[in-house]
Amino acid sequence: MKRVLVTGARGFLGRWTLAPLQERGFEVHAVGRSTEAPPEPPRLPPGIRWHRTDLLLPGRARALVERVRPTHLLHLAWVTEHGRFWSAPENLAWVSASLELLEAFAEAGGKRVVVAGSCAEYDWGTGACVEKETPLRPSTLYGAAKHALHVLQEAWARERGLSQAWGRVFFPYGPGEPEGKFVASVARSLLRGEEACCTRGEQVRDLIFVADAALALVRLLDSELQGPVNIASGEARPLREVALALGRQLGRPDAVRLGALPDRPGDPPCVAADVRRLRDELGFGPTHDLEQGLAASIEFWRTMARGDAP
Amino acid sequence: MKRVLVTGARGFLGRWTLAPLQERGFEVHAVGRSTEAPPEPPRLPPGIRWHRTDLLLPGRARALVERVRPTHLLHLAWVTEHGRFWSAPENLAWVSASLELLEAFAEAGGKRVVVAGSCAEYDWGTGACVEKETPLRPSTLYGAAKHALHVLQEAWARERGLSQAWGRVFFPYGPGEPEGKFVASVARSLLRGEEACCTRGEQVRDLIFVADAALALVRLLDSELQGPVNIASGEARPLREVALALGRQLGRPDAVRLGALPDRPGDPPCVAADVRRLRDELGFGPTHDLEQGLAASIEFWRTMARGDAP
Repeated sequence: MKRVLVTGARGFLGRWTLAPLQERGFEVHAVGRSTEAPPEPPRLPPGIRWHRTDLLLPGRARALVERVRPTHLLHLAWVTEHGRFWSAPENLAWVSASLELLEAFAEAGGKRVVVAGSCAEYDWGTGACVEKETPLRPSTLYGAAKHALHVLQEAWARERGLSQAWGRVFFPYGPGEPEGKFVASVARSLLRGEEACCTRGEQVRDLIFVADAALALVRLLDSELQGPVNIASGEARPLREVALALGRQLGRPDAVRLGALPDRPGDPPCVAADVRRLRDELGFGPTHDLEQGLAASIEFWRTMARGDAP
Repeated sequence: MKRVLVTGARGFLGRWTLAPLQERGFEVHAVGRSTEAPPEPPRLPPGIRWHRTDLLLPGRARALVERVRPTHLLHLAWVTEHGRFWSAPENLAWVSASLELLEAFAEAGGKRVVVAGSCAEYDWGTGACVEKETPLRPSTLYGAAKHALHVLQEAWARERGLSQAWGRVFFPYGPGEPEGKFVASVARSLLRGEEACCTRGEQVRDLIFVADAALALVRLLDSELQGPVNIASGEARPLREVALALGRQLGRPDAVRLGALPDRPGDPPCVAADVRRLRDELGFGPTHDLEQGLAASIEFWRTMARGDAP
């Protein structure tokens, strides 16, 4: 019997992992800080078992793991508040909470763990990021905290004889994303009939549809692949193209005002992923290309704007 | 006024830092898990203020820092039990405890922190280790934990605007070292009139006299140097030479049995330090060469064997 504990299960990425986990035969235990039903989408299947706890409080992770006794752990919880998470001191607290969680998981007989890392662990000055080649030189506290946890997880799993992988998530977008993020912000402006003011949009980024990122993490958890794996589409492109695609789909290409905002100082020109591990070793390919993913995003924000239950 | 909090102050390295700190004008607050007088040597000057606490218990570091309100932090405490520390799960707990300590220190107005790292952070396959060049690829949980904490400390200090350095300690030896360590073990065997059974002793190591390692950390704390600094003698040599030097000083060179023990599998052939940062940027040079350091060690073990108060 496969029993998985999913942390951050109410989050943007987490809630897209739950149905796929169940479909792959996992008994799914989802953790969040609230007992309210998680926001939609996606609509969740019955049978998800919810646990309410604050993993940042010492002792809580251990108590939860001892109660659930999962065979698998998918650890996605972290400080993620848009714009704030890069430098929030809670990044340190999440390292400590994660270590408690990992250690408790091992002691309760857990077998396989996947943790969400980040493209922010990499040195962004070196082209497409390759898992075991690109230097790890995070420029933010968030990236440093994820990198440090990865170092610890690898050494701890070796010592404990546990199976582990580390998903370096690039830029998920899609239905339910925080309103301030790029795709949401452009789509909402255009839907409101306003102009979408952007930078020149020369920055190249690897965007991945949220359901695909979640599915990739689920597939990774349900495999024996070890170590870091990029969670990305492999199709990095300038954000300009993303904005213009939204404009086209909404019939308002002229309302996308590239260059209306100044470039942000220090914004890296290119954050792209090499996806050979994901594609060739895990056999994963995305279900949505960019046009399909943007269409789903537009549909979501259109529904939200109408005030329908999403 | 300079007020320093020293963790691990009862430890082998820590207790050698206290008098030099006081001599440099610090008000010295020493932390240990016991209130007993620390073992000698060295004999400690009056005026050290001792605090008893277990930093591994959540909340204790914060409470201590809020009481003492140090301007400087010298964080040496860690799991150090000889032979066990490489893989002990407490390495993870020390990362968490250290993060609580750092964060509390910043919140209480602290200015400058030095933490004891380790040569075990480096990839040992690449010759003399250079702080910002040699790849950091620890092969043990201990090395991984120190490396992870360093990554976190650098990012955290940048975010907080704190002054920080990280002392990568190589192989301290000298009076008071744990009995199982190399110099102690050879010296004690020879003093008992026994043979000292060794491997072939081809392994090259950078040994540094404990009082020098402690003094280097104190000098580092009392400087504005930022980032990692090797704490080493810069005079790496085969352990064979160390054993034979002990044999000569004790008049029993023939009792040193090189090759009587098999080489340990996986034992790295060379762990040597580049000391340009320590020597040129900090201006530090050791006060004891190897012959003097070994003489002091022999004197210590001779006294212990006689059962004198050390």
